[in-house]
Amino acid sequence: MCSQTITPSCSCRLKHYCGVAGVSSLKEANLPQKLFYALFSLQHRGQESAGITYNRGDELVTYKDLGMVSQVLTHYLAEEHLSDVALGHVRYSTQGANRIENAQPFSVRSNKGQISFAHNGNISNSDELRESLFAQGSIFSGTSDTELILHLLSRSAKKEFEENLLDTLPRLQGAFSGLFIFGKKLYAVRDPYGFRPLVMGKTNDLTVFASETCALDTLGVNVAEEVEPGEIIAVENGRIDRIDFGKQKKKSQCVFELIYFARPDSTVFGYSVHMLRKKMGAALAAVDADGGDIVISVPDSGNSAALGYSVASGLPFEHGLTRNHYSGRTFIEPTPEMREFGVRLKLHPIKRAIKGKRVTIIDDSMVRGTTSRILIRLLKEGGAREVHLRLSAPEIKHPCFFGIDIPTKDELISNRMTPEQIASFIGADSVSFLPIESLRACVDNPDDFCYACFTGEYPFKVRDRSARRKN
Amino acid sequence: MCSQTITPSCSCRLKHYCGVAGVSSLKEANLPQKLFYALFSLQHRGQESAGITYNRGDELVTYKDLGMVSQVLTHYLAEEHLSDVALGHVRYSTQGANRIENAQPFSVRSNKGQISFAHNGNISNSDELRESLFAQGSIFSGTSDTELILHLLSRSAKKEFEENLLDTLPRLQGAFSGLFIFGKKLYAVRDPYGFRPLVMGKTNDLTVFASETCALDTLGVNVAEEVEPGEIIAVENGRIDRIDFGKQKKKSQCVFELIYFARPDSTVFGYSVHMLRKKMGAALAAVDADGGDIVISVPDSGNSAALGYSVASGLPFEHGLTRNHYSGRTFIEPTPEMREFGVRLKLHPIKRAIKGKRVTIIDDSMVRGTTSRILIRLLKEGGAREVHLRLSAPEIKHPCFFGIDIPTKDELISNRMTPEQIASFIGADSVSFLPIESLRACVDNPDDFCYACFTGEYPFKVRDRSARRKN
Amino acid sequence: MCSQTITPSCSCRLKHYCGVAGVSSLKEANLPQKLFYALFSLQHRGQESAGITYNRGDELVTYKDLGMVSQVLTHYLAEEHLSDVALGHVRYSTQGANRIENAQPFSVRSNKGQISFAHNGNISNSDELRESLFAQGSIFSGTSDTELILHLLSRSAKKEFEENLLDTLPRLQGAFSGLFIFGKKLYAVRDPYGFRPLVMGKTNDLTVFASETCALDTLGVNVAEEVEPGEIIAVENGRIDRIDFGKQKKKSQCVFELIYFARPDSTVFGYSVHMLRKKMGAALAAVDADGGDIVISVPDSGNSAALGYSVASGLPFEHGLTRNHYSGRTFIEPTPEMREFGVRLKLHPIKRAIKGKRVTIIDDSMVRGTTSRILIRLLKEGGAREVHLRLSAPEIKHPCFFGIDIPTKDELISNRMTPEQIASFIGADSVSFLPIESLRACVDNPDDFCYACFTGEYPFKVRDRSARRKN
Amino acid sequence: MCSQTITPSCSCRLKHYCGVAGVSSLKEANLPQKLFYALFSLQHRGQESAGITYNRGDELVTYKDLGMVSQVLTHYLAEEHLSDVALGHVRYSTQGANRIENAQPFSVRSNKGQISFAHNGNISNSDELRESLFAQGSIFSGTSDTELILHLLSRSAKKEFEENLLDTLPRLQGAFSGLFIFGKKLYAVRDPYGFRPLVMGKTNDLTVFASETCALDTLGVNVAEEVEPGEIIAVENGRIDRIDFGKQKKKSQCVFELIYFARPDSTVFGYSVHMLRKKMGAALAAVDADGGDIVISVPDSGNSAALGYSVASGLPFEHGLTRNHYSGRTFIEPTPEMREFGVRLKLHPIKRAIKGKRVTIIDDSMVRGTTSRILIRLLKEGGAREVHLRLSAPEIKHPCFFGIDIPTKDELISNRMTPEQIASFIGADSVSFLPIESLRACVDNPDDFCYACFTGEYPFKVRDRSARRKN
Repeated sequence: MCSQTITPSCSCRLKHYCGVAGVSSLKEANLPQKLFYALFSLQHRGQESAGITYNRGDELVTYKDLGMVSQVLTHYLAEEHLSDVALGHVRYSTQGANRIENAQPFSVRSNKGQISFAHNGNISNSDELRESLFAQGSIFSGTSDTELILHLLSRSAKKEFEENLLDTLPRLQGAFSGLFIFGKKLYAVRDPYGFRPLVMGKTNDLTVFASETCALDTLGVNVAEEVEPGEIIAVENGRIDRIDFGKQKKKSQCVFELIYFARPDSTVFGYSVHMLRKKMGAALAAVDADGGDIVISVPDSGNSAALGYSVASGLPFEHGLTRNHYSGRTFIEPTPEMREFGVRLKLHPIKRAIKGKRVTIIDDSMVRGTTSRILIRLLKEGGAREVHLRLSAPEIKHPCFFGIDIPTKDELISNRMTPEQIASFIGADSVSFLPIESLRACVDNPDDFCYACFTGEYPFKVRDRSARRKN
Repeated sequence: MCSQTITPSCSCRLKHYCGVAGVSSLKEANLPQKLFYALFSLQHRGQESAGITYNRGDELVTYKDLGMVSQVLTHYLAEEHLSDVALGHVRYSTQGANRIENAQPFSVRSNKGQISFAHNGNISNSDELRESLFAQGSIFSGTSDTELILHLLSRSAKKEFEENLLDTLPRLQGAFSGLFIFGKKLYAVRDPYGFRPLVMGKTNDLTVFASETCALDTLGVNVAEEVEPGEIIAVENGRIDRIDFGKQKKKSQCVFELIYFARPDSTVFGYSVHMLRKKMGAALAAVDADGGDIVISVPDSGNSAALGYSVASGLPFEHGLTRNHYSGRTFIEPTPEMREFGVRLKLHPIKRAIKGKRVTIIDDSMVRGTTSRILIRLLKEGGAREVHLRLSAPEIKHPCFFGIDIPTKDELISNRMTPEQIASFIGADSVSFLPIESLRACVDNPDDFCYACFTGEYPFKVRDRSARRKN
Repeated sequence: MCSQTITPSCSCRLKHYCGVAGVSSLKEANLPQKLFYALFSLQHRGQESAGITYNRGDELVTYKDLGMVSQVLTHYLAEEHLSDVALGHVRYSTQGANRIENAQPFSVRSNKGQISFAHNGNISNSDELRESLFAQGSIFSGTSDTELILHLLSRSAKKEFEENLLDTLPRLQGAFSGLFIFGKKLYAVRDPYGFRPLVMGKTNDLTVFASETCALDTLGVNVAEEVEPGEIIAVENGRIDRIDFGKQKKKSQCVFELIYFARPDSTVFGYSVHMLRKKMGAALAAVDADGGDIVISVPDSGNSAALGYSVASGLPFEHGLTRNHYSGRTFIEPTPEMREFGVRLKLHPIKRAIKGKRVTIIDDSMVRGTTSRILIRLLKEGGAREVHLRLSAPEIKHPCFFGIDIPTKDELISNRMTPEQIASFIGADSVSFLPIESLRACVDNPDDFCYACFTGEYPFKVRDRSARRKN
Repeated sequence: MCSQTITPSCSCRLKHYCGVAGVSSLKEANLPQKLFYALFSLQHRGQESAGITYNRGDELVTYKDLGMVSQVLTHYLAEEHLSDVALGHVRYSTQGANRIENAQPFSVRSNKGQISFAHNGNISNSDELRESLFAQGSIFSGTSDTELILHLLSRSAKKEFEENLLDTLPRLQGAFSGLFIFGKKLYAVRDPYGFRPLVMGKTNDLTVFASETCALDTLGVNVAEEVEPGEIIAVENGRIDRIDFGKQKKKSQCVFELIYFARPDSTVFGYSVHMLRKKMGAALAAVDADGGDIVISVPDSGNSAALGYSVASGLPFEHGLTRNHYSGRTFIEPTPEMREFGVRLKLHPIKRAIKGKRVTIIDDSMVRGTTSRILIRLLKEGGAREVHLRLSAPEIKHPCFFGIDIPTKDELISNRMTPEQIASFIGADSVSFLPIESLRACVDNPDDFCYACFTGEYPFKVRDRSARRKN
């Protein structure tokens, strides 16, 4: 890739683990362009790399690179590439070498023919599986689960690709919501726990899969249903086959998708993300709503909850912080001291709105507390008399083995401090979190979710060494 | 410049006319870095080009190029360039050739020495002045007023630079809020009508000028006062001289700065932009507030007014549209058909929030109606039962000769249609505008503003041929 | 990789098949920088992609991309990366998709640990080997022999890496001169026929391998010896082990390396390339030297032979064509009509030197005759009275399965025309080739070379379907 | 311009001062493409920036940027821009800020309309002229003579453009070979001394001007004549007017154009560059030809002279140094130590050709001796027994005020050392230069040339302060 002196400035506190989209068309269409739109709308799920695979006649073509959708895939906006089937991927930002090697989709030639694969998730028994493949002489060019899964698939002795999937998928432990192309057939798969979302929508000509419904909306594909946990959906020529490979498991949907990751206009796990966040905000107000003259949000992730909080508490909603639209753009962050400038360039207090006020500010969650600390300082400098920070998520205390890149236990501020200590550390007048019971009460089926990052109760026992970030 | 296949996708409806910032320091400091921060926060005022001038010893160094601040000036983030004085500029997007020639700052050598100049505005008698300079044998490498003003300055027979300014500035008719460097002295000038904003802030070491206070905030410079209309402020070594060159004129501050251009966290012409927009929203509600179940905003320019509208009308505020943070990024818009996709990729209805609702949506103003039409369609597709569009500005019917790039009269929808006809054209259930009297009532000193784009009443007679966009 | 609208303009008539270089150092040194120099001097062997692998502590780091050495590896010139061992590769230009997937070095993780590999050559039984690997479930991300060889290695059941090599290399049929890194040990291997060159040089600290001695010269490493056909040389901490894995085979060194590929200042297969080309030129003169007033060369590949021809024939040597140094630079060749301009921009007749003269022009070989035809036209336009083309190679009539990308039989002009017909087709007054016996007489050990592209006599039977370009 | 971390590696010892080309066409044609070809063939005259001006209807369009022709003007290869008249420029490499401001062509609007200008040369009374313009209030955006000349032109009170030229050109002292476009008319001008070359060629449709005939050859325009010193040639619609503005002056053609600058296939000042260089080589042999076994050249600038030397001396010509075609490509030269590597990467001794030999090596001239020193070391390392350096130019001892960027007197090695001392300094066994009388004897009309850099005898008195490099 071209040497770049500019690195993405991501102030996201939790790293997303990718987004996927795929399209199968009844007749040849410019599917790469459709994927541009779909992936563009999933950009929030991964900014490190983008890529697509599509068929050109009987051949699969893959194009991927480090960068944003609008950089990597720009030429697909203008060019026409007629295809029957296509899939794409956006990937979150990591550090270090060999990064291009892990970009997705991953396309290989095997004894079955060409296969392309892209997924969102994290295989928690990948070390074990990798060891076994190593023992059999397999080689790995990268370190991703994606490549691992393709190895397993290729070694399946079964004739049919569906059978290969049925052979392989049950061996995978952990989170995967993925898409395959084999021949001109598109396969969507979702792990039996359903950690990560994956939806399907249809028009007359198209069958579309995506991590979130917002990608379907962009394509004007309105009717969406979920790929069920433990299900394979195979699509070709408009024919849809749904195959159960492990539906018996208890659902463990990632509640953090609803709290923070997903776009507010998406419907995820059957919930309107925006509406659910408003509910969380209201729940937060029910717990602890004194002390404020106004309610403001940390834009944009706190917007929905702040509105819910305002309605429930009766405190007036204000725009106390504005967000610079240009701050998403890349620029150098050469020194740690410039981090603070990064926040300052992105979020701006509206002094006249907060001056002399007791401000309740709603954010979605707290990881290290670093950004919160800068924010509180900005608000106080801006004249806020008091600042009360309310988080619409419980305290994060445990790592995630299913696709979120949570820092180590030591880095998580809630493992080191009580809310009172945090308040003192970040300079807030008070800090409080949404209790886990309140969070559970926001959803209709609380047992269908994974809360492990808050509770440490994982849906199954995970060998700790797999906890290292792999994908 | 490097050949670029990527063009900026600007969905702004009215083009801004530049932003400026300048710094004079008591002791040598890394002023280019400070200007990076200041200009970054003024990026909304111009995305076409960026540039800075600073002194390196006795020499002025100018660096500018087409592109965003984060692209053009990136290296100034990391590098150290010790200077006593510096100024910078961001410029809005135009079409056509010779664009780099018009990028600012404009630095020249003259009989007085090196002069650098950058400004925000539009000289309405520039054709006349240019003719006279042509007659005297002057040559112009670009078509900007900036170059013109430097020609005039250079021809001034006076010895002192201040005298040159006093010679030159009164000959300029129209809008200019600008900054000069001569020697190591920084000069801020503002036309006698005060069309465009220009503020000054001070710390112990620094004197900072900028188009908006948000740039001062970014630098931690809090106390701001306006450069008065008709005033020159000269700064060197911490000494500040204020010189009157034409204060007698009636103020004609651009009311559109408050309605749309300025950032909500800025204080402009003495008004908190956010608070004034809330007031406009409230005024709008006072005129016409029936018909809605909820109030939503076109993010982000309608946010403040929508909140004001909600409070005044009692209708609940909702997040009905979300904005994609990645849409500011550049990508190709090769065909007109893709325009709609441009809007679709940027603004997304939250269906569950608007479904079945009568939606009152607040936008700041309407120019051609194109974007509104797409937005209404999005909302209706998203399930809104009724959509009532409310604009927090009066109907735009006339060109601006003082620094806003308003389309031709024919393109302005309010010259062709009544609000009812507009509603029918864009598919809204109703459309209404803020009456001019209501707008005037929002400010304390309504006669100090220019409303010409609404009323056609210009502060002075402008020869029509100067109406062409020049800067 | 970044989207590029500029494609390399290669007017090379035969494509080279890569160059390799590797360094093992007694103490940690900035080996990536050394590889920059070495690969830069091997750039003529491949312009499509460049890459290196080096150890950072116990980890192998690989960096590669499409482009020239000076583009891809530039940062290694300035940065310091301390390493014990490193290898690098340049690759020739191909068409089509998936190109980055085939760039070298190829680095993988396996049951043995990390392995990096880069080679120059072509495995002629790769289809067969690939089928067998497919049958065992192996997957391939690219189509290169490099990946194939790593698969085989990884599946070797032996404990030691040397044993793995001894297991694997004998299974490979065809040409390979390659370098491996395993741990901190560097392995050089060369196939038993010795098709492609590979030399080793030593200083006190460094052991260096490269395709040609010119790379060693660049590093100031003067003493060079060949890696013997059928030999593995393993180097670590200055210790050198030489292992025979198949020395019994008859040598089949590629005579075309001497005729055209290698740089004239290199010593290849023990011959000074320049001196041998002079000998070929002299041999050519011995066969057919009438008809000319002057001898000129097609720069630069004909330079040495032209000089030899001049000395042997007594005809004066002239600079009749000059070569534009900037034509190696990339630019678009959008239409076939521009091909001719490509030649015109690169080679220029010196009219005054050739005007009215009978010109004997020496080129190294003829493939399709296209470039020759343009050249003859240039010379005639330039005033040459007669043009006699002499080729210092025999007629090319057969494909190469051992690492040269020769066009199909039909495209080879010598399969369709006699020298007389060729002369008429390209507009020359006569055309003649170096007879195969004359070529053989130029070397001391004529049976140690492969002449298959001239004679069709391959050193062993090759299954035709492997003839497709693969590496 | 885009920020570049890569700087051109120029090992040229004397900087060229630009090249120009212009075309007037009887009917509209794709002139920008023709200029691409013409400028590409003049690339050796300037690698810093490239640019063209052409008419689009009645408007002049200018496009220029820092970089090589193949980078800056690439898009003109593929695109069609129909024009009647066009001119272009390549510029040599300088250091420092404000470089883009000095790129040519320079296009301005004036009281006469649009004018575009590009030239090759140096105005030696520019300081004086600039002072006078400053006094009249002119401003300068750059520091080039080009801008200065346009100022003068614009101030001419005459009605007709030809009259303006007649007013202006006689005021200029020094070297200028330039092209103007005014309206759709192309004007070629050459100073009365004729320092720099400028030729004209014609086809049925086209009239073409260029610094060297090689540019005409590239366009297939064969018949060339010189623009006479002191002449204006105006072309429009195929009509050619030749106007004398100062023919009385004694010619002072730059002899260095013949020695080093021009391409060997060009005809300059009526001389075949290659043939004249052969003659210089022969003259050099006549002076001092003992001591060698072989004659080699420093490619490519010494090629012609070396051949002449060989023929005259009877010493066999050899290829003792090869030149890397990729070394023209840009790469970082971050430290002085890497300079030597720069030479090593570019020029390679062919050891077997020089080993044990007494080598006479021919170079064109010596400036600082730095490169020669490295070269001698390379040859000695390569085994040469003796190295005798022969320069086909006299000793350079004086600055040039007419368009060559010669270092300061102190830097010129011949001002500090005798040939013997130089030999000792650079490690050669002997060094000798072509005597000035021998050089004069090579041309038919020795008094028509300027030898000031050798003799210090300038054609007219030059005020020393103008000696600073300006253009």
